[in-house]
Amino acid sequence: MDTLKRFVEHDRYAKHLGIEMLEYGQGKAKARMEVKTHHLNSAGMLHGGAIFSLADAVFSAASNSHETLAVAINVSISFFKAIKSGALTASAEEVSFNPKIATYLINVRDDTGNKIALFQGTVYRKKNAIADVIK
Amino acid sequence: MDTLKRFVEHDRYAKHLGIEMLEYGQGKAKARMEVKTHHLNSAGMLHGGAIFSLADAVFSAASNSHETLAVAINVSISFFKAIKSGALTASAEEVSFNPKIATYLINVRDDTGNKIALFQGTVYRKKNAIADVIK
Amino acid sequence: MDTLKRFVEHDRYAKHLGIEMLEYGQGKAKARMEVKTHHLNSAGMLHGGAIFSLADAVFSAASNSHETLAVAINVSISFFKAIKSGALTASAEEVSFNPKIATYLINVRDDTGNKIALFQGTVYRKKNAIADVIK
Amino acid sequence: MDTLKRFVEHDRYAKHLGIEMLEYGQGKAKARMEVKTHHLNSAGMLHGGAIFSLADAVFSAASNSHETLAVAINVSISFFKAIKSGALTASAEEVSFNPKIATYLINVRDDTGNKIALFQGTVYRKKNAIADVIK
Repeated sequence: MDTLKRFVEHDRYAKHLGIEMLEYGQGKAKARMEVKTHHLNSAGMLHGGAIFSLADAVFSAASNSHETLAVAINVSISFFKAIKSGALTASAEEVSFNPKIATYLINVRDDTGNKIALFQGTVYRKKNAIADVIK
Repeated sequence: MDTLKRFVEHDRYAKHLGIEMLEYGQGKAKARMEVKTHHLNSAGMLHGGAIFSLADAVFSAASNSHETLAVAINVSISFFKAIKSGALTASAEEVSFNPKIATYLINVRDDTGNKIALFQGTVYRKKNAIADVIK
Repeated sequence: MDTLKRFVEHDRYAKHLGIEMLEYGQGKAKARMEVKTHHLNSAGMLHGGAIFSLADAVFSAASNSHETLAVAINVSISFFKAIKSGALTASAEEVSFNPKIATYLINVRDDTGNKIALFQGTVYRKKNAIADVIK
Repeated sequence: MDTLKRFVEHDRYAKHLGIEMLEYGQGKAKARMEVKTHHLNSAGMLHGGAIFSLADAVFSAASNSHETLAVAINVSISFFKAIKSGALTASAEEVSFNPKIATYLINVRDDTGNKIALFQGTVYRKKNAIADVIK
C-alpha cells in the first residue's frame, strides 16, 4: 500500500463523519459524503461545519499528495445553498504551488451539480515526509 | 425551556463531535470540546475540520441568539498551533450587527490559554423566528 | 451611454490607481493595471493593496452588472507571487448568484500568465438601481 | 533614522493614497487616512480597495516591525459600514507569531469610533533583514 493511501486512510475524523475519499494524487483530490442525521444543525439542514470538514478532507489529501507534510494555515469558505439530504462531492485543485506555501480551491456540489460552497485554503509546506508523520 | 436553548441543544452535528455548549445569549457564546481519537487527522493531530466545527457551533449560537434565523455566508479561519490532546474552548463575540448582515469573531484556545485558531464569520439574517425552524 | 458604463467609468479610485476597465457585463468583468512607481511598497514590489484594488474594481463591475446595487461584505485574497514591473490583468466570474447574496472569483495574472493572486468576494444585493446611486 | 522608519516611510503606494502612519513597532501599527475625492467609488462612497489599502499599510508596518521581511500570503476582510467623508483609522495587533508564519487583526474605524471593517491577515516571515530589501 503506498504512503499517500496510508496517510489518507488514517484520517479518523473523516471516517467519523462518513467522508469517502474517491481519488487523490498530484495536487488533486475528490471525496463524497452522504447527508446523515448526525450531520444536521438545529434547523434540520446540513451543518456548515460538516461541509467545511468534507472540503478540508480533500484539501488535506491534495496538499499532502506531494508526500511532504502540508499544514493548513488559512481557509476561507463561502456557503451558497442549504441542503438537508442527498450527498455532497468536494473536488480540490491546486491553484498555486511554491516551495513553502501552496493554495487550493475546493468546489462542493450536491448530487445534481448545484454549487453548495467554495473553499480556498493555504498550507505551509514542511520538510517532513508524510511517511514519517502518520500516527 | 426557552427557544434559544431548544435551538442550541438540537444541533445533532455538535453532539456527534462531542461539543459542549457552555453559555450563549446576546450575541455571545462559548463552547468546549475534549480531543478524542475520532477528532484526529492522519498525522495524529486534532483535525482542522474539528477546530472549525467547534468555532462554527459558537458562531451559530451567538448569531442566532437574537432569535431570528442567521445563516452563515462566509467564514475565514487561521490556524496557529497544532494540538493532539486536551480540550479546546471557543468564544464568540459580535463584531458588527446590521439588520441583514452580522459578523462574529471566534477565538479558539487550548486549556493553557494558547491561541489555536481565529475564526471570522458573517451571517445573513433572515426574518424567520428560530422557534419556527427547529427541526 | 448606458448605465453600467456610466457606473464603471465614474469610479474615481480606480482612475487614481490607473486601472483600465477592459470589459464588463453579465456577471463578468476584466481590467488591467500597469505597474507604476506609485504602486510600489517599501521593498520595491507591487503593493498588496494595489493588487487587491485591481481585483476589487472588477469585482465591483461584475457584481453591479445586473444594474442593481451590490455592496461588498466580505473578501478573501491569497497572494502567490511578488512582481515589480509589467502589467496585471484581473478577470471576474460569478460563482453563485442569489436574490440577496452573490459570490465572485477573481484571478489576477501577470503579462506572461503567471498567477499573482486569487480573490473571492461576496456582495449583498440591494434593491436600488445603480442608475439612482451614481454620484 | 532607524531601519523600520525608513522602511515604513518608503511605501510609495501608501503615500499615493494619502495614508499617514501614526505609530508602529513591536507587532503593532496605527495609521489614518482622510477621505478625498480620489478615494470614492461609483456610488460616491469610500472604495473598498481604499479601506483595504489603509488596513494593509498597518498590516505591513506591524508585521515588518521585527525587522525581518514579512510577506502577505492571505487576507480576509469584512466590510461593515459605508462612509463618504471624514477620516478612517486602522490599528493592527499581532494575534499569533511563529518563526515562519504570523497573523494580525486590523480594526478600521471612523472618526466617531464606528467599526468600518475588520481585516485578518497572515504573513510568511522570510529571513532577509528589512534593511536589505528597502528599494
